[in-house]
Amino acid sequence: MTHQPTDPVQLTADLVRCPSVTPEEGGALVLLQGLLEAAGFACTRVDRGGVANLFARWGEKGHAKSFGFNGHTDVVPVGDLAAWTVDPFGAEVKDGILYGRGATDMKSGVAAFAAAAVDFVRETPPEGAIVLTITGDEEGDAVDGTTALLEYMEREGERMSICIVGEPTCPEEMGDMMKIGRRGSMNAHFTMTGKQGHSAYLHRALNPMPAMARLMDRLSSHVLDEGTDHFDPSTLAVVTIDTGNPATNVVPAQTRATLNIRFNDTHTGASLSEWLRAETAKVDAEFGTRTELTIKISGEAFLTPPGPLSELVAKSVEAETGRSPELSTTGGTSDARFVRHHCPVVEFGLVGKTLHQVDENVEVAQIGQLKAIYTRMLRDYFA
Amino acid sequence: MTHQPTDPVQLTADLVRCPSVTPEEGGALVLLQGLLEAAGFACTRVDRGGVANLFARWGEKGHAKSFGFNGHTDVVPVGDLAAWTVDPFGAEVKDGILYGRGATDMKSGVAAFAAAAVDFVRETPPEGAIVLTITGDEEGDAVDGTTALLEYMEREGERMSICIVGEPTCPEEMGDMMKIGRRGSMNAHFTMTGKQGHSAYLHRALNPMPAMARLMDRLSSHVLDEGTDHFDPSTLAVVTIDTGNPATNVVPAQTRATLNIRFNDTHTGASLSEWLRAETAKVDAEFGTRTELTIKISGEAFLTPPGPLSELVAKSVEAETGRSPELSTTGGTSDARFVRHHCPVVEFGLVGKTLHQVDENVEVAQIGQLKAIYTRMLRDYFA
Ligand SMILES: [Zn+2]
Ligand SMILES: [Zn+2]
Repeated sequence: MTHQPTDPVQLTADLVRCPSVTPEEGGALVLLQGLLEAAGFACTRVDRGGVANLFARWGEKGHAKSFGFNGHTDVVPVGDLAAWTVDPFGAEVKDGILYGRGATDMKSGVAAFAAAAVDFVRETPPEGAIVLTITGDEEGDAVDGTTALLEYMEREGERMSICIVGEPTCPEEMGDMMKIGRRGSMNAHFTMTGKQGHSAYLHRALNPMPAMARLMDRLSSHVLDEGTDHFDPSTLAVVTIDTGNPATNVVPAQTRATLNIRFNDTHTGASLSEWLRAETAKVDAEFGTRTELTIKISGEAFLTPPGPLSELVAKSVEAETGRSPELSTTGGTSDARFVRHHCPVVEFGLVGKTLHQVDENVEVAQIGQLKAIYTRMLRDYFA
Repeated sequence: MTHQPTDPVQLTADLVRCPSVTPEEGGALVLLQGLLEAAGFACTRVDRGGVANLFARWGEKGHAKSFGFNGHTDVVPVGDLAAWTVDPFGAEVKDGILYGRGATDMKSGVAAFAAAAVDFVRETPPEGAIVLTITGDEEGDAVDGTTALLEYMEREGERMSICIVGEPTCPEEMGDMMKIGRRGSMNAHFTMTGKQGHSAYLHRALNPMPAMARLMDRLSSHVLDEGTDHFDPSTLAVVTIDTGNPATNVVPAQTRATLNIRFNDTHTGASLSEWLRAETAKVDAEFGTRTELTIKISGEAFLTPPGPLSELVAKSVEAETGRSPELSTTGGTSDARFVRHHCPVVEFGLVGKTLHQVDENVEVAQIGQLKAIYTRMLRDYFA
């Protein structure tokens, strides 16, 4: 029995038409499950906390040579619908461009890999396994998404030996970048308390504003590091200071601030938390204020050092695009931060210029190229 | 014809029963006008901009020996009515205490002087004039209050040679403080603009938060002066910083701050404005931000140097209370900031502990003492 090759553009369009705004499944995982099961993949829905996730494996459970893929079918909200020039869930194609929410982030990536995997197991059934972990909760809190899939795999003895995350990774041209790690990210919320009073009688008050300004200036101007071989310098951004005192003749009792740190692997969430607490305590001691500090670590920095996996990706990309992808660790967080606890992980996908924007779109040609690149990875991995 | 002495406690109670919350006249000025006219004062209502003001003169217009008094009958709002244990406009007397909004600030002061003046001109008509300028807009914007009265006087050739402002000036005991000047006050509003961006790609953004923290730290920690013979050190209070950015993954385009400066006579509003603009420009140059700065000067610092007027007040206070009043320049602003352009001005009134508070009240005995003190001032001045 011969099969027509699976069209990844058609599959992308079908997925875009599923309105899967987090946490809605929107029909996207059901569609993928049908396609994968028809090709012999064993599929399990791993839903949790109102979120839908799909686990799919072709071949032997726990095989030492298991090629893994991770992606998401959920999308961010449409935003200002009036600003769109197309139906965000229409998957309209104009002049070789496919439009719609999720077109780049990342229904095209999921479609390209699913199409590659389905055709690959049909044409050249490998010695080993292919595993897809597709979540419906990457754009949301991500507590019941890839994490739920990985916990399921742990429980069931499932395995990925390596994993490709299919997020859009190329800043300008198809093939110009892969991600071999990510900086960590954490937020710190400061609530600083003094004592309210009249501006004309400051000696009876304890204004927290000067202490907050001093603390935020000190933290902002501290150089966390100079960067490493694979990482940019860590950055700290004070994102807001809020007091809400409308009276100019009163100094406030309390003020709040939030900062975000993107950190490389010279730090950990714990080491940075300790530093923040120490600096805050110093300022509190200088000014007499009391500060409550709440820290939330969204992800630690991680790196899959250049090696066999990044070479597998680079070789496939070079063969299909003629470009040598940069090994980068830039950008925000992705579910690679969860997968890296399970196995070596590298992220590679197409150009993400319009991600999360109005009129999000993808070049149709790139979807085909991406399928070809993923197919080469599979072939080379199992060769 | 002999008259009963005018009871300043009764008059205070009558004034408290007039609900003259700024800008309502509430019957208070009408009441005073009746009393003063009956004693031979020429009265004119100098209403402007929805505010009522009363000008009253006994004696010759523009006389070189014109004793002036300035006060207000408007009061701040009741606030949390449920928190009051008495009717705020009831003027209830319990255990020698008179309760009500305006009891200390400053219907008792106005009543004490009016009672003193009325009895004085009846008993010992002086060689000279007595002038009362009573406003209904001290607690509000004060643009159509004492200023309107002084402009009227200028126009009409009216005169005060010296002026007592009857605000409550004593912090603890009757007679412990007079005010011979006030610090100036100004507000500065900063709107600092950078460029919004994603926390993960800070090099593409220009976060105004570090620049704002630096600026507010620099301004807060600058020592404006060490104080002078008659003034406390000037103070600068950052009263609020507000950004309103709810997203931790975005750095904001803009942030705002407000500060209040209380300054002594080593500065002017203009010199401080220049300094603020220079410091802001420095930070803008360091960080690349753009800052809009709006400055509002509520009043310049002023001083009536110790001399005949303060001695007149001190002698009368000492004779009636046995206390030697401190010559102070502390506290917020008062209408003395307007009067001082017209003539030497000193503020003296009773104890202001409950001013603007719930259950505002005054010791009945203090009202009588204050009338006696004002009477002595009149006698000594015209002696
Ligand atoms: Zn994504
Ligand atoms: Zn007052």
